Amino acid sequence: MNSRHLLNQIRQKESYLCIGLDTDFFKIPKFLLEFEYPLFEFNKRIIAATSDIAIAYKPNLAFYESLGSAGWMSLELTVNYIKSHHPEIFVIADAKRGDIGNTSKMYASAFFNHMDFDAITVAPYMGSDSVIPFLQYDGKWVILLGLTSNDGSQDFQMQKLATSKRFLYEEVMLKASEWGNTDQLMFVVGATQSDRIKKLRKIIPNHFLLIPGVGAQGGSLKDISLGGMNAECGIIVNSSRNIIYADGTENFDKVARDKSLEIKAEMSTYLKKKKII
Amino acid sequence: MNSRHLLNQIRQKESYLCIGLDTDFFKIPKFLLEFEYPLFEFNKRIIAATSDIAIAYKPNLAFYESLGSAGWMSLELTVNYIKSHHPEIFVIADAKRGDIGNTSKMYASAFFNHMDFDAITVAPYMGSDSVIPFLQYDGKWVILLGLTSNDGSQDFQMQKLATSKRFLYEEVMLKASEWGNTDQLMFVVGATQSDRIKKLRKIIPNHFLLIPGVGAQGGSLKDISLGGMNAECGIIVNSSRNIIYADGTENFDKVARDKSLEIKAEMSTYLKKKKII
Repeated sequence: MNSRHLLNQIRQKESYLCIGLDTDFFKIPKFLLEFEYPLFEFNKRIIAATSDIAIAYKPNLAFYESLGSAGWMSLELTVNYIKSHHPEIFVIADAKRGDIGNTSKMYASAFFNHMDFDAITVAPYMGSDSVIPFLQYDGKWVILLGLTSNDGSQDFQMQKLATSKRFLYEEVMLKASEWGNTDQLMFVVGATQSDRIKKLRKIIPNHFLLIPGVGAQGGSLKDISLGGMNAECGIIVNSSRNIIYADGTENFDKVARDKSLEIKAEMSTYLKKKKII
Repeated sequence: MNSRHLLNQIRQKESYLCIGLDTDFFKIPKFLLEFEYPLFEFNKRIIAATSDIAIAYKPNLAFYESLGSAGWMSLELTVNYIKSHHPEIFVIADAKRGDIGNTSKMYASAFFNHMDFDAITVAPYMGSDSVIPFLQYDGKWVILLGLTSNDGSQDFQMQKLATSKRFLYEEVMLKASEWGNTDQLMFVVGATQSDRIKKLRKIIPNHFLLIPGVGAQGGSLKDISLGGMNAECGIIVNSSRNIIYADGTENFDKVARDKSLEIKAEMSTYLKKKKII
């Protein structure tokens, strides 16, 4: 999948919504626990209810791993389900991986070969040779951590470097933008960082940004949309808890759809304002 | 497990060897492929042959994940096998995880609750609130990336910060040393960085260091041992490929034992030189 496919989907659905599948065994409706793979059953219903609204789904690996191999089975079933029913939808492994070259190569194989994810989130601390193995798959994407939405982003990401005088997160994004083109590399920028996103767009004008942190974490959809969009949209905004746990009953999927439609309606106005649709 | 347990084991075995279980489906002897969980069968034989020499085992998650849920099953079986046969041995999930608080909490649950790892490697880029959830388990450890062994360590870790004038990796280790004490936090420092390890010991004198990169990656065991040890040893040195793939036949476990004994013999001389045994 390339950036044109993403833009086509955004225009068609009038949405740049990614739904985060932070599927928590202890939060999903109880009736699902009777199935062999409860996380998958939950996801399947969320996906069936929102696939005409969301352009991307983002399973958060931690939630599956907390159930071990059975959780991984739910993950595999989820990816297969999306790809067999909705091949146009962008599927992101929110895995924050990254290691020395030969190990990153194995992670890439796990997510792009064994499973059919379109993208994986990667942590930049170990540098170029920890990221580049993920960029060797045609049509697959690295989504590199840039500036995250949490308080801890101040500890290191927001430190200025002595030589370049740039913040670490700016250095990461600038350097990494040479490792991958705009059809294979995007960056995570938290929605809680909307004051910094305009400045960031000056050094990273063309790469897509994946923006988590709207809703539960407090980011404003309006601010990050108007500040972060470029002429080809260039942003994917993730919402997880606000959508998938909006209701705890057997109606959870219908309520998730309603929540998604609300967000889409707002997104649609920004897309129009920016003349993207 | 605390640092005293680790030191006891080091003295008893005259070794600070960690064996990295980078168990690669395509590299293990062919006769193992007939089993349901080949990676586990390989590990079981390596462990049985080396458990009196190694003080720690370190499964590298990428290798298991490349086989998906079946690989995770091998991982779970491996941890259970070690913990039921050799509860004194330190078991490290080389997973390089780290995410926002609620997600790190789920990762911690995966590795410390669902599985019985003693420690997990964590990436520091997202800062304090991405690391602290892993430090909430009594007797469990975070092994935070400090200065890694790969070329990419130069991209960001070796950049100087404007305010503190420290390298990023020094800042990471100094700041993080306030988040966890010497019974719950250690740092990854690559063996290829032996020239920097002495200076590092001045700012991090007491925390254990996990040192990968001896052997296949070119680090010298002598240099990092004499430069990195403190009065309580304070280092765990990992070797993976040099041991587990030293032989590709049905004899692989015996040859792995011989290789481990060679390394132990060398380690023993450094322990004596430093008057730890």
